[in-house]
Parts: sequence; structure tokens; C-alpha cells
Amino acid sequence: MAGKEETETGARAEAGTASGAPPTLGVGMVGYAFMGAAHSQGWRTAGRVFDLPARPVLAAVCGRDRTAVRAAADQHGWAAAETDWRALIARDDVQIVDICTPGDSHAEIAVAALEAGKHVLCEKPLANSVAEAETMTAAAARARARGQVAMVGFNYRRVPAMMYARRLIAEGRLGALRHVRVTYLQDWLVDPEFPLTWRLQRQHAGSGALGDLGAHIVDLAQFLAGEPLVGVSALTETFVRSRPLPAGATAGLSGAGGAEAGRGEVTVDDAALFTGRLASGALASFEATRTAAGRKNALRVELNGERGSLAFDLERLNELSFHDHTEPAVTAGFRRILVTEPGHPYLEGWWPPGHALGYEHTFVHQARDLVHAIATGTDPQPSFADGLQVQRVLAAVEESAEKNAVYTPVPL
Amino acid sequence: MAGKEETETGARAEAGTASGAPPTLGVGMVGYAFMGAAHSQGWRTAGRVFDLPARPVLAAVCGRDRTAVRAAADQHGWAAAETDWRALIARDDVQIVDICTPGDSHAEIAVAALEAGKHVLCEKPLANSVAEAETMTAAAARARARGQVAMVGFNYRRVPAMMYARRLIAEGRLGALRHVRVTYLQDWLVDPEFPLTWRLQRQHAGSGALGDLGAHIVDLAQFLAGEPLVGVSALTETFVRSRPLPAGATAGLSGAGGAEAGRGEVTVDDAALFTGRLASGALASFEATRTAAGRKNALRVELNGERGSLAFDLERLNELSFHDHTEPAVTAGFRRILVTEPGHPYLEGWWPPGHALGYEHTFVHQARDLVHAIATGTDPQPSFADGLQVQRVLAAVEESAEKNAVYTPVPL
Amino acid sequence: MAGKEETETGARAEAGTASGAPPTLGVGMVGYAFMGAAHSQGWRTAGRVFDLPARPVLAAVCGRDRTAVRAAADQHGWAAAETDWRALIARDDVQIVDICTPGDSHAEIAVAALEAGKHVLCEKPLANSVAEAETMTAAAARARARGQVAMVGFNYRRVPAMMYARRLIAEGRLGALRHVRVTYLQDWLVDPEFPLTWRLQRQHAGSGALGDLGAHIVDLAQFLAGEPLVGVSALTETFVRSRPLPAGATAGLSGAGGAEAGRGEVTVDDAALFTGRLASGALASFEATRTAAGRKNALRVELNGERGSLAFDLERLNELSFHDHTEPAVTAGFRRILVTEPGHPYLEGWWPPGHALGYEHTFVHQARDLVHAIATGTDPQPSFADGLQVQRVLAAVEESAEKNAVYTPVPL
Amino acid sequence: MAGKEETETGARAEAGTASGAPPTLGVGMVGYAFMGAAHSQGWRTAGRVFDLPARPVLAAVCGRDRTAVRAAADQHGWAAAETDWRALIARDDVQIVDICTPGDSHAEIAVAALEAGKHVLCEKPLANSVAEAETMTAAAARARARGQVAMVGFNYRRVPAMMYARRLIAEGRLGALRHVRVTYLQDWLVDPEFPLTWRLQRQHAGSGALGDLGAHIVDLAQFLAGEPLVGVSALTETFVRSRPLPAGATAGLSGAGGAEAGRGEVTVDDAALFTGRLASGALASFEATRTAAGRKNALRVELNGERGSLAFDLERLNELSFHDHTEPAVTAGFRRILVTEPGHPYLEGWWPPGHALGYEHTFVHQARDLVHAIATGTDPQPSFADGLQVQRVLAAVEESAEKNAVYTPVPL
Repeated sequence: MAGKEETETGARAEAGTASGAPPTLGVGMVGYAFMGAAHSQGWRTAGRVFDLPARPVLAAVCGRDRTAVRAAADQHGWAAAETDWRALIARDDVQIVDICTPGDSHAEIAVAALEAGKHVLCEKPLANSVAEAETMTAAAARARARGQVAMVGFNYRRVPAMMYARRLIAEGRLGALRHVRVTYLQDWLVDPEFPLTWRLQRQHAGSGALGDLGAHIVDLAQFLAGEPLVGVSALTETFVRSRPLPAGATAGLSGAGGAEAGRGEVTVDDAALFTGRLASGALASFEATRTAAGRKNALRVELNGERGSLAFDLERLNELSFHDHTEPAVTAGFRRILVTEPGHPYLEGWWPPGHALGYEHTFVHQARDLVHAIATGTDPQPSFADGLQVQRVLAAVEESAEKNAVYTPVPL
Repeated sequence: MAGKEETETGARAEAGTASGAPPTLGVGMVGYAFMGAAHSQGWRTAGRVFDLPARPVLAAVCGRDRTAVRAAADQHGWAAAETDWRALIARDDVQIVDICTPGDSHAEIAVAALEAGKHVLCEKPLANSVAEAETMTAAAARARARGQVAMVGFNYRRVPAMMYARRLIAEGRLGALRHVRVTYLQDWLVDPEFPLTWRLQRQHAGSGALGDLGAHIVDLAQFLAGEPLVGVSALTETFVRSRPLPAGATAGLSGAGGAEAGRGEVTVDDAALFTGRLASGALASFEATRTAAGRKNALRVELNGERGSLAFDLERLNELSFHDHTEPAVTAGFRRILVTEPGHPYLEGWWPPGHALGYEHTFVHQARDLVHAIATGTDPQPSFADGLQVQRVLAAVEESAEKNAVYTPVPL
Repeated sequence: MAGKEETETGARAEAGTASGAPPTLGVGMVGYAFMGAAHSQGWRTAGRVFDLPARPVLAAVCGRDRTAVRAAADQHGWAAAETDWRALIARDDVQIVDICTPGDSHAEIAVAALEAGKHVLCEKPLANSVAEAETMTAAAARARARGQVAMVGFNYRRVPAMMYARRLIAEGRLGALRHVRVTYLQDWLVDPEFPLTWRLQRQHAGSGALGDLGAHIVDLAQFLAGEPLVGVSALTETFVRSRPLPAGATAGLSGAGGAEAGRGEVTVDDAALFTGRLASGALASFEATRTAAGRKNALRVELNGERGSLAFDLERLNELSFHDHTEPAVTAGFRRILVTEPGHPYLEGWWPPGHALGYEHTFVHQARDLVHAIATGTDPQPSFADGLQVQRVLAAVEESAEKNAVYTPVPL
Repeated sequence: MAGKEETETGARAEAGTASGAPPTLGVGMVGYAFMGAAHSQGWRTAGRVFDLPARPVLAAVCGRDRTAVRAAADQHGWAAAETDWRALIARDDVQIVDICTPGDSHAEIAVAALEAGKHVLCEKPLANSVAEAETMTAAAARARARGQVAMVGFNYRRVPAMMYARRLIAEGRLGALRHVRVTYLQDWLVDPEFPLTWRLQRQHAGSGALGDLGAHIVDLAQFLAGEPLVGVSALTETFVRSRPLPAGATAGLSGAGGAEAGRGEVTVDDAALFTGRLASGALASFEATRTAAGRKNALRVELNGERGSLAFDLERLNELSFHDHTEPAVTAGFRRILVTEPGHPYLEGWWPPGHALGYEHTFVHQARDLVHAIATGTDPQPSFADGLQVQRVLAAVEESAEKNAVYTPVPL
């Protein structure tokens, strides 16, 4: 899958899919760190394991450092490298702009790409503020009218167990919902000497565990329940208030208020704890933290309804626990469904029953679903409007946290 | 050691046995339903499996229905039956009054028993209001000065895994605490046709899941952390607002506001969700509910600290999960400790490693510990003061729930 | 529950159950170590938590050391102490003889008790040889004709999850059986300095892990499957061949062949591994060992049939895993049934759903079932004939192990 | 490093890229069904996530049906398609021949490829007979002298948890081994109407569950233990003896003995159960079956040693359970290590801690390791000699099963 080959393929695709081969869709990706690597795997793989109406082509990747972006292009299989995201958007061989940068640049890039006629995939959280998210959603709506598609990267919806959970809930297997409880626990900030990276600075990340992890679980909760949160009550905390500046930290940072010598102030939350109500009246609880020692990626979901319950743990992502409350009590119990059967979502592309999938498969599925949405002209899930709704919840959480946890409505 | 009456009783009890046998302690129990049965098993067994300084004797049990209380006495092994709790307290062969009635009668019985010179074990929650709990605590303090002991029945502290968890935390194995999260999930109110028993009526039960289940987890959280909650933010909910009157329901009930024909209004919460802060600044989250389908007795605890974490599930009560964060990351992980080893709390009375204990063992341990407190003249754990502190948390939870979840301090 | 009281009760029972109270059954127990303590708890408790047709009375306990047996009687609540098991059998207030001694004395005591007209409960394994077991079974058959009952103490059948598993299998929920796999793993012999107790000497224990643990799993496998093993192939091993003599070891032992200074030869197996076929053609595998580091009491059972599967782990004895293979594959999975529901076996005596039972409950259930068998004149389960069948399997295992693992039929 | 052909291919591949790019290795794959799809993912991905000394290029795929193999090439990203494996081997742009066909063709293809100077990766089991495996191993030894590499595809060694388990064992964390128990349970043959595919015919598959699943667990057991099995005792069974012929079954098959109308005889085992001894004297047990209802891919491993134990379940492949028996008993327990930390094997190529890997990652790792072996001229693990050793164990298993399970030595 050399670069040259892909470029040729891309050209052929543009030409109009000669001789029965599927058309292609050129992807241009901005950012190439952790998310960029994961997205690359998604784009490389989707067309190989799924029968797609169009085959994604890794056209170009964009980053500020010319040497680094070139190396990344070579490593991940992108045909070309760009150092200016505007140039990337302008490329003829790019039909999809995939935004994998920190949240403070999402709005500008996404709006420009949409206005340039490109489809957009934007990493979560959609933006660092509701205002930005509104602008982006408006741009997406305008673009939608022109046939473009804009999707936000809440990839955990695309864990097969989560997509299947949604199906069971939509079929009524849980009945009226009573409880939703979701946690997302990590532990990389337990160490007080972990450095002050961009994820710990409000101006870049918008918020801390809340935007990084909380955004995922708010989206998942609303997606699974099929209804929005209507209000929240929140506590947030920053346990470690200053951290070592990373090597090569900017001057601006070193002058930050409260910084010790060689340390900078942490301006985001380490943890956010919130409760809320869904539109149906169900109670919901959330915890997002990076200071839960021993929890590496513990995104845990449980929903309890009048007719059944579901439970899930991202650290065991091939499993879904389902309790059918309509069973006789003597034989009822949470059953561990291995979500690797032929009829389960996305499994048509993968392996026989019991053969585990992993984290990055969610990005393969995301690529698959975006290509389908583009090809069929249907609304993508989750849309920018969905991302905006999550942003409003996050804003209500922050507002509540500032107001002594008072219950704070989420605007519709 | 016990007072005059106890000595006499002991002397009487010893009449037919060898002179080196331990003295006895006569127990009088009020109430004989679920809790009464569990306490009976505790009193019957403690002296058989543990070496106690005094052997409990099941002197008398008390209930309002003469036939029923007699049958209960015979069933559970109580030597005598009473129908008036005042008469029970007055018995010479009763040195310990064990209160297993609904919360609305705790204060009156406990205060009378203490004033009559008896030791008291009172089921949780200590009372239905802070005012009652204060009265009881004051009475216990006065009695303490006379050498009496008053304990509140938070039996889950006495699951060996929980007592051992406290020991690990006290030894500093978790370091500075960051998070405490506790849930207590049951499902017996999922069914909307479950009848309106006393536990669903505010005048008898004080509150619903909050007082029944929430009291346990508030006590456990504070016990394990070794520090109090200083403030809370809460949401509560009653999903099923009217329920069938049980056969033989009182006239008073049937006239309750909001009752349909043959149904009565549920006046307590089905579920309570609250967050809070501990004195050290750690964040805490709580959920108490009886509407979590498939969860039978899911009291789950997790504590995360700077040096380690602990997790527990009452449905697997012989296990404690411990993560030692000072281990190298490559070999670290939550280890499943079977809390059935010789050095674990209470295990000196039981079986070889790996032989499981069950729910009612907590009542055996409670009886053991109360006897030791009486014999040694030490403060019992948990004391009425501890029960009062829990009551204050529950009151703050209710206040917060009424005030739109606003963060509400817990008075010291 | 003082000794005097019980003696009186016993007397009353003998007199013929005056005034509506249930009759009593006097129990005489031989041996009072680990098994004796567990059986005592069973006898003390059965009549308190279950409605029994007759209430067991702890009449007398027997041991060779007068002081020790007296202390045991007092500790465990036995009304009298004997030092000669023949005297115990001869007591008028003893109707049930409960044998908790090492296997080399089972036959003599059991046969004498049966011939004296007593009901007998005999700990497993029934005997140390097939010949002894045959003698005992013949004595039980003669006694049966006289209305006596003889039961062997395979207590693990009486874990509610196991009894319920048998019910599910008998109802056909697994269909035709394909596989039975059972392990019983402990680790107390990993330490090479663990002393040479009677359990490690062939003349007392008959065999090692095979008779101690293997007997349980052979019985369980046959009980659950509802059919016998027809042949086996076996490997056995003694990893640690000499061990320190315990303090006070007999002179005979110290002269044992192969003994080092202060050490004696281990004459039983540390581990036994065997496979076999059930009458239906299902394959079975077994492993019994005391050298599996970290496994404390890991009796694990799995059965796979054409229509479903069951799995169980004694370290989580309140849970039964059930897979219903007739479910659609997308929702099928092993469900974790908490065997604590009202309809589950033995639960009528215990607590609400989700409240865990423990190890010694099996002895309470055993006492309950023996009393029922006596009262109703029905065959006890498991009978001495069942114990003999297990003994034949163990003998076939030993024979196969001696003959290079060749498949060895189990005589019918 | 690669020979002349590789350099040319590399040169061609590099035509359009910077001069510092790594050389390439052309892969030619024979077979493109399940294994072919998995291997394709491995070859496509290895060079993208790992820093390799040479980048694999998917040069050509081979299959008998021209249309199908072309479609497969297009689907999986192979540059060319061949219908004759001899032609594939002869291609200049192929330096590695990857054999993904049924076992009956392994020997011929592998020997031809090795003699043609190619490196070989051959799917497991290495062959259908010891004789074939010996021929292949001899050919590999001759090729080794010429600098070629031959590896057999026991991919489960390359689950990070398994490779890490080996490291812990090699470091002595388990001490002297006592027990190895391994099962590989699947359930796709529970249904008696599952058709008679090649995997159920001795002439193609060699054996049934034994060769398919048993080969994996024999290899894993020996790999982890670091020592060979020296003897085995075995039972095998075919529960469903005839099955429907698949659509398009060959005439040869329909005439098979024992076939009913439209059905054919199953000539391989459904299940194989065997025990054995390792060179050190440790006991081992194995079960391979495709008739364990509800078990989808339950490859489970446990090893117990004097100093610790390890346990693993392929259905939860990111986890390794480790018990350190040198810990104090009160804090010891099986710890669940998430094998997703930076220091764990293969994790340098993947995601942050706690982000799960899946089944096909083993093929990416296999490709990585083969490329490293080729580049560094080191012996590949597992080698053809390792595959031959497994074959000898399988042959001893079959011999024992034919001889009434008698203990059968494995030739060295």
C-alpha cells in the first residue's frame, strides 16, 4: 500500500471509477498524534474489511512541522504531507477533511472545510465552547443542504457492544428507563509529576477530564438512552494544581499565574462528578476522572429499565451484560454476551464468533459509517448537532460546578 | 463488665456448669422480622465460633402479636416472649436490648433502655430524624458514663473484606484519597405492583432508599475513608408514586392523599443520587436505589488514592480488589483477595482459606464486637454518635434535594 | 441455647413431643475438628431457619482426649461429651450418629451405629477402600429395611447453586451432555515445609488430594450429570515427597521408610488428574490438587450439553452461570444467576434476594435434608450406595494411575 | 536482510519516495479465506504501527479460482493475483511465501518455497503428519543455512499477555512448575446440522479439534512452560458422526463410507481430552473441543508454580491474571494485569494504557516478528522444529487415544 499506488488510485477514483472498481474518497487529515494514528488505521482498514460504496484513500496529512508531518505521512501511509491546513482543504484529491487537532482549532478548520465543499469528520469534543459549536453546526446545516456530510468523532458509539446496546434499547428490551450511570476512569494524572501538556491547559483543551472523558460518556448516555439530558448538578476538582512544564514549553506558559519555578498552573479539572435527569425522568450519574489509580480506560455504562438492564466496560469491550427482567427470577441474571456474532453490528467485516476486536476498530467503523453516509446522502450519526448538544451539557456542568452544584437546565 | 443484673444472670446461667465457664449476657430483642431473624442467628452463633469474654443468651424477644412473637421465640431460640417492649427492658435477665423495629420507634425504645441501665444495639438508620438521633446520642453519652454501651447496627462494616479494607487504608496503602464511589442497588421496587409496605411510608421509614440503603453506604464511605462528608448535592426520585395497599392496611393509610382506589401514595424516594466532598477534599458519589433491575444487593464500593485503590461488591462479599499503585505498571493490577485467610478480620472463628462466608456472618461479628466492647468497657464501633453523623448526612441530602441539588454542608 | 436447656429439650423430645412442639432428634457426633465444627453449626442452625418435622438436638460429642472433647462440647454447644464412640452410640438420647473422623475409622463406627439402630451421617469419602465401603453399604441396606437412614456427607451437593443446577439438568435445559469438567484446586501443600499431618498419610487418609478433593468432584459430576462414570484414565503425582513431622508425631511415623531426620515420607498424592466417560458417552475431566498456588478452594464445574451449559465456582458459591443455547445467538451468553431467589433450593430458610450464603450453610442444608429423610422414611441423598460408587471411581483412578493411565472401567 | 530479489523489489517500491525509506519485503500469500484475511490485515498493518527494518509489501495472493482470487486481491489489497502456487513462488517480487491453506498442502508448498529461496510463514498445524513435518523441518534447516527463515503460525504466542506471561515465567516468577492446564473450547459443532466442511475430513484437516485447537494449546503450553511434553494420555470423541454435505460437495465425498443420503461421515474428532507430563515433572491437562455450547473462543491457560500462578482467557485477551505466592497471604490474590502498558510486549506500536487490542493484532505482531527475524538473520519463533515437536505431541495423543488412553511418550 505504497504512497504512489494510493495516489494513482485516488486519481482513478476522481476520474470516475473505471471498470467496476468502487469509486474512492480522498481523505485529508489534520493532526497526526494519538488520534491521527488511530484515524489512519481506520481509513487504511475500512475498505479492506467492509464492502464499501467508495474506498477511502489516504490523500494527505497536515501538521505544522514539515519534517515531522512527512515522517508521519510515511509511517501511516498518507500519500502527501501538508503544513498548512488551508492548503490541505484546498487539495482536489481531498473530499473528506478529518480533524484530529486539539479542540481550540476545531471550529476554524471545520467551518473552512465545509465552506470549501468538503465532508468533515471532527474529533470530539466538537469545540471548546457552545458558541463555537453553534457556529460549526450552522455551517454543517448549510453544507448539508449542498449534500455534504459532517460527523463528530464519538467513536465509542461504534464499539459493537454499544451499537448493539442501542439496538436492544430501541427495541424496548429495557422498557422505561430508570437509571443511567456512566463513569470514565483513567489514572495518568495520579502522578503529580506528569507534565503540563496541552490537555491540562484550558486555552487549548477547553476543560480537563470533563471535555476529554466526560464528553464521551455524555454522548454515550444520550445515544444509548435515545433521549437528552435536561439538567445537571456538578462538582469538579483539580487535585494537583501545578505540574512540571514539559520540555520546550512556551514562554507564555511559564509566565502563567500560580506557577512555581519550572512548573505551571493546571487550569482544567482533574475530575468531574455530575448527576442529572433525562427527558423521560430517568436519573443519570456521571464521573470523569484521570486520577483513579489502577483504572486505565474504565468507561463503564449501566442502564436500568423496567424490563431489563445493560452493563458495559470498555476494558472488556467485546462483552455486553444484559439482564432480561421479564425472565422468571430463578433463571434471570446478567448474561455476558460476546458481541462477536454474525448478527452483531459491524461483525460482517470481522472474524468468527469469540474473536476479540479492539479499540481502533471503532475508527474503522467510523470510517465505514461516514463513507456510507456520504454515499447514500443520509445524515451522519453523530452529527454536529449531536456534538453541539453534548457541548451544551458540558457547559451546564461547568455552570453548575461554579454555582455550588445547583441543578442547571441544559438548553434545548 | 456488666452491672449487677448481668452478674446475677451470669451466676444463674452458670448454675449447672463448670466454674471456669464464661459469664453470660442476656439479650432482649425487639422486633423479629427480617432483621430479627438475622440478629437471632448472630446471637445464637457468636459464642459458638468465637472465644468471647461472655456468652450471649437469647433471653427474650418482643413483638406486639402474642401468638406470632411466641412462634418467633420458639423458631429462633429465644427463651421467653414479651408483647410490651417496656416489659422486655424491665427484665432482669436482659442486659442488652437489641432494637430491630422500624425507625420510628428507635428513639423511644433506645432512650428507655439506656435509662434502664441496659446496653443497646440499635438497627440502622439510628432514627428517622436528626433530632431523634441527637436525643439518642445524648442518652448514650450519659449511659456511657455509667459504663453502658450503645452501638448502631451498620453491619456491613463487619464484612471481613470491609474491615480489612479499613485496615489497609488506615495503614496508608491508598495514600491521599481522591475518590470514593459507592452504590447500593436493589430491584424489588421495579415491579409497580409491589405493595405499599411500611418501608414505603415516610411516617414509619423516614425515607426510602435513602435511609434504607443510603444510610449503609454513607456509613461505609465514612468508615472506610476515616473521615466525614462535609457537604452533599442530591437528586431524589419516586418513579412509582402509588402502590397497592397491602392486605390489612390501616384505615389511616387508605385515606392518604393521592391514593387511588385500593392504592396508597408512596411517600418516600425510590432512588437517591448524591455527590459530596470528604473533609480531605476527596470527591464522593453515592447512589441508593431499589429500581435497578437485576441488581439484588449490589452494594459496591471503590476508593482511589494516590498510592492505591480498593473495590468491593457485596454480591461477592468474600472478595476485596486491591490495586497497589506503587507496583511497577507492568505487573500492577487489581488483585482479587479472598478475604478468608487466617490473618483477616474475624476469620479466627471460621473456616480454612477459601471457604466462603455469607451475609448473616456480619451479625455474628456484630454480636462478637458488642460483647467485647461491653466486656472491655471500650467504645463500640459504630457508636450512636456515628449514627447521628450519618443521620446528618441524610438530612443534608434531603435538604439539597429539596433545594435544587445545591451543595449543602453537613453540620459537624 | 445453654447445655441444660438442650438436655431438657432432648428429654422432652424423647418423651414424645408434648403440646404441639416438634419432636426432636438427638445427634451424637464423633470427631470435633474442622468437620466437627462445621457439622455443629449445621445441627445448631437447621431447626432455627427451616421448618423441620423434628428439631435436631446436640446430644453428645465424642473424642479421645477427655479435656479437649469437653472443651469442644462447651464451645460448640453439645450437651454431653464422650471419649468412647461405642458409648456415644449406646446413648439413649442419640438417634443420629454423625461421623466426622478420618476415613480409616468410618467403616467400624458406621457399621456399629447402624447395627445399634441409629441413623448415620458419615463424612466423605465414605471409606478408605472399596471393601470397607461395600461393608458399610450392606449394613446401610440392612438398616434401611429397619427404617434407618444412612447418608454420606457430600455437602457440596447442597450448595443452592449445585442443587439448582441439578434441577435445570433434570429438566433437560442442557440436553444431551457432551462435556463435564471439574477441578478442585487448593494450595496449602505448595509450601514444602507444611507438616506431615494425617491427611498426608495413606494409612489414615486412604489417598491424598484424590480422596479429599477428588471424592467431592466425582460425586458432584455424577450427581449433576445424573449418570455414573464408566471408566477413567489417570495420572497422579506427589511433588513433595517428604515433609516435617508435626510436633508430637508418633514413633511409628518417624521410622517410616524414606524419612529424613525429623521428616516423614508423604504416602499420598499431591495431585490427581483424570479423564473419563460417563454412561451417556459424555467426556469428563477432573483435577484435584493441593499445589495450585493462589487457588484456595477452587471447586469449579462446567457442563456442556446440546441445549445449554452450566458453570460454577465454589469461591463464588452464590452464583451459577447458565448459557441457554436455544436463545438467538445475538442475545445468548452465560448469565450469572444469583442463587438467592425465593424459588431456589433451600432459600426458604434464608434472606432476601442477593444476600449471600456461605460455606457452612451446606451443613445446615445437610442436617435439614437428613431430618426430612428420617421423618418421611425416604432414601437419603447421597446414600451409602452413592458413596460406594464414588469409592469405586477413586479405586479405578488409582488402578489406572498405577497402570500407565490405561483406561480403566468402573465396576457397576 | 533479504536477497537479490528483495533488493530489486525494494528499489522498485522506493521509486517515488525519499532515499532514507526502509527497504521492502514482498509477500506472496497462498489461500485467502479466514486465515488469509487475518494475515492480510497483519501484512497491511505491521509496517504502519511498528518501526520495521523492512516494510512488507502485499505482492501477490494465490487461489485456484481466478475470479475469486482477483476479488480477494482487490478486497485485501494484494497487488497481484495468481492461480498456481508454483507461479506465486516463482515471482521475483515475492520474498516471503505465506501459506494459509488447509494442512494437507502445507508440506508441498513450504518445501518448494524454501527450495526456491523464499522465506516461509506456514499456518498451523505445520502439517497433517509427523512425516510431513519432518520433511518440512529438514527443508527449513537446509534453507536456514542459506539465510532463509521459516516460521510456523502459532499466532497466540503473540497475544501480548501470552508473550508477557512467558517473560514472567522465564524470570522465575512462578518458580518450579506444578501444573499446566489449558482448554480451547468452541461451540460451532454443537449444531448437528453444521455441514461437513474440509475441517471435518481427515484427508484434508488431518484431525479435528485436536489439530485445529489442540495444536494451539500444545504449542502455548510448551512455549509458556519453556519445556516440552514428554508423554500423554488421551481420549477423543466424535459426538456427531455424520453431517450434511455442503452445497457443491465433491463426488469423492458423497461416496464416503457411512454416509447417509446427502450426509457424509465425519472422520475427525469433535473433542480431544488429554493429560501429560512436562520434562520437569509438572502435570498438564488439555481439552480441545468444538462442542462446548456457549464457549466461542475459550482458550484458557493456567500455570501454577511454587512461587506463583498465571491465568489467561482468550475471550479477554488484554488481561493476564498473576498471583504472586511470595506476597503475604493477606494481601495476595490473582491480579488482573491489563497488558496494555508501555513496557508490555508489542505495545510500543499501539495505544495508551487500557486501550484494548483484538484478535488480529496477533497477525500484525507475527508479521513484525518475521520481518525482524529476516532482517537480523535470527531464528524465528516458533520455528518449523517447534511445529514438528507439536506434531509429535499430536501424534502421541492420537496413538494414546487408539490404545485405551495408555500413557504414550512423545519422541524427542
